[in-house]
Amino acid sequence: MTNRYSLAVLPGDGIGPEVVGCALDVLDAAEARFGFGTDRTEITAGAQHYLATGELFAEVQDALRGHDAILFGSMGDPAVTPGILERGFILEMRQRFQQAANVRPVRLYPGVPTPIAGLTPERCEMVIVRENTEGAYVGSGSTVHAGTPNAVAMQESLNTRAGIERVVDFAFRLALGRRKKLTLCHKTNILVAAGQLWQEVVADLSARYPEVETDYVHVDAMCFHLPLTPERFDVVVTDNLFGDIITDLGAVIQGGLGVATSANLNLDGTAPSMFEAIHGSAPDIAGKGWANPSGAILSLALLLGHLGEGEAARAVEAATVQVLGELPALAGAEMGMSTSEVGARIAALVRDAAT
Amino acid sequence: MTNRYSLAVLPGDGIGPEVVGCALDVLDAAEARFGFGTDRTEITAGAQHYLATGELFAEVQDALRGHDAILFGSMGDPAVTPGILERGFILEMRQRFQQAANVRPVRLYPGVPTPIAGLTPERCEMVIVRENTEGAYVGSGSTVHAGTPNAVAMQESLNTRAGIERVVDFAFRLALGRRKKLTLCHKTNILVAAGQLWQEVVADLSARYPEVETDYVHVDAMCFHLPLTPERFDVVVTDNLFGDIITDLGAVIQGGLGVATSANLNLDGTAPSMFEAIHGSAPDIAGKGWANPSGAILSLALLLGHLGEGEAARAVEAATVQVLGELPALAGAEMGMSTSEVGARIAALVRDAAT
Ligand SMILES: CC(C)[C@H](C(=O)O)[C@@H](O)C(=O)O
Ligand SMILES: CC(C)[C@H](C(=O)O)[C@@H](O)C(=O)O
Repeated sequence: MTNRYSLAVLPGDGIGPEVVGCALDVLDAAEARFGFGTDRTEITAGAQHYLATGELFAEVQDALRGHDAILFGSMGDPAVTPGILERGFILEMRQRFQQAANVRPVRLYPGVPTPIAGLTPERCEMVIVRENTEGAYVGSGSTVHAGTPNAVAMQESLNTRAGIERVVDFAFRLALGRRKKLTLCHKTNILVAAGQLWQEVVADLSARYPEVETDYVHVDAMCFHLPLTPERFDVVVTDNLFGDIITDLGAVIQGGLGVATSANLNLDGTAPSMFEAIHGSAPDIAGKGWANPSGAILSLALLLGHLGEGEAARAVEAATVQVLGELPALAGAEMGMSTSEVGARIAALVRDAAT
Repeated sequence: MTNRYSLAVLPGDGIGPEVVGCALDVLDAAEARFGFGTDRTEITAGAQHYLATGELFAEVQDALRGHDAILFGSMGDPAVTPGILERGFILEMRQRFQQAANVRPVRLYPGVPTPIAGLTPERCEMVIVRENTEGAYVGSGSTVHAGTPNAVAMQESLNTRAGIERVVDFAFRLALGRRKKLTLCHKTNILVAAGQLWQEVVADLSARYPEVETDYVHVDAMCFHLPLTPERFDVVVTDNLFGDIITDLGAVIQGGLGVATSANLNLDGTAPSMFEAIHGSAPDIAGKGWANPSGAILSLALLLGHLGEGEAARAVEAATVQVLGELPALAGAEMGMSTSEVGARIAALVRDAAT
């Protein structure tokens, strides 16, 4: 019997189709090597599609739902009003598919140049788990006296015990399979109500995971610790808005958007999880073969791990890390290989992977 | 006629008194060299004082008010419950003295080691202006069903047109005297109501300052731009919470807390402004002579500039930068000189400064 999975593939705009194409070549190799199969449905959506049809997430959700996972390229085009795709697609998917945890590994791979002086791969090996559906992202805000000198903008951040609990529980379980350390990142001295609820949940769940050590860091102090002492972190769990900010700092540390990747995990089995590189659609370099497909291929590795194909996941990651270490530059003409050549090289390594 | 100013000096806890002592030696030198005078009133407040008396800002505000400026050391002690001094003193002072703008220069001084590979002083010369009284810091939050599985924490961020206007106007005027570029940092695609009000104010005031070019960067993208392309910024204006986060990242880039400094400016003349190094009280190294007084001395330079003693301000800054460039390490035993030796050396340079 062969494991078979159903995959929704959403290449999107700009360099999205190029890098997702590479990831699919690598997937072919992984299937051949590790003996599982996928049925793939390509879904057309994104900025171009929105400009042509006005369609956003609502129109494709039925086509996406029911798959085992979504492989996502990237979305965006300067011609689309800022906010439309974010709120009409990305955030809508996180909500409607209850992708409660945004998981971003922050690993410095050997051979990848980091802008942080003296940082070494051994010191940078963590995962940031961001709550992905609540907080400031609930979209609750309004302005009274708009357009007048006494206008007041009110913006609300809402966190439910249930929403925090599911992501903190996930983070504890993740830590259990790693170095057994969980750090809460928040701003409890200012956001007192929310901060107390987060701290309460961490304290309560910590009783269930006594092997996991917990600690706490303010989000502003995180700006020091992430670049300067990343070795103190194993799993970091944080609020939606703080996670948005510190994961981008994490991406800087690990060498930039070219290698950073993320999983938007549905934790209750009601809808598919989504996997993507965190870079944008980069319309300025689309079609040039200058994009680095490593982020997309590493997101495929996360996807395979999520489906339970751990061996294939590890092989894809190892092959990508090897090729990343060989590239003279992370992107552009100086990368020394085109996007598809990088993909083909990684695919070849996966096809020949030892177990 | 000699200019005379009245100064409240608040040394605080830990290394606060040591570094403020150095700043006052430098102030003596500046007065001798540049022919102005100060009357100084030392105010006792902080963690130790709170533990002994229970007194916070409310009890010293009358002693502070009426001075031309406040020179602040640092506050804090592990024995004080987190949040007490922050909310009972620091934030209380910002509110009651209407210190509407928190101004943090981010400058990489020559000779100061930065953790950002390849960054040079010419590329890093900006000022971050943080709104200092509103936003998430209004302290409006509550939890319904607290302690139950359906608890909901609600946290509100409030911005008024007037509150935004005064700080954006200040930032425009600052930019006018510099490279004439103002960047708004926010998260307008998510915090839509607040984001629109900030953007509206920047657009409206921009008509008054047509020479100043404006642009916009999301707070998450700031984590890329600040370390990697700081040269794109001259003056950055931002919300209270985002400012708290990105100014700490700014401090990292310029070489750390030892050299970072800030002004909490009252803009309407109703109360004194406050000047401080942004480092904490560092109780672990207090009394050892290992603290670097440069942050405190640079905050004195900001204070002198604010009082209108521009020549003295420039001399204090130049002397500090020179000594910073001579130190083998920024703090600790490896600094090669004690705290007071660093202060004395800077004071000597100020005393002999050319004009
Ligand atoms: C595109 C945007 C809405 C999104 C966010 O703010 O979450 C992005 O920055 C991210 O981190 O995935
Ligand atoms: C001490 C704390 C309340 C304060 C803040 O959050 O503003 C500090 O982090 C700062 O940046 O001055």
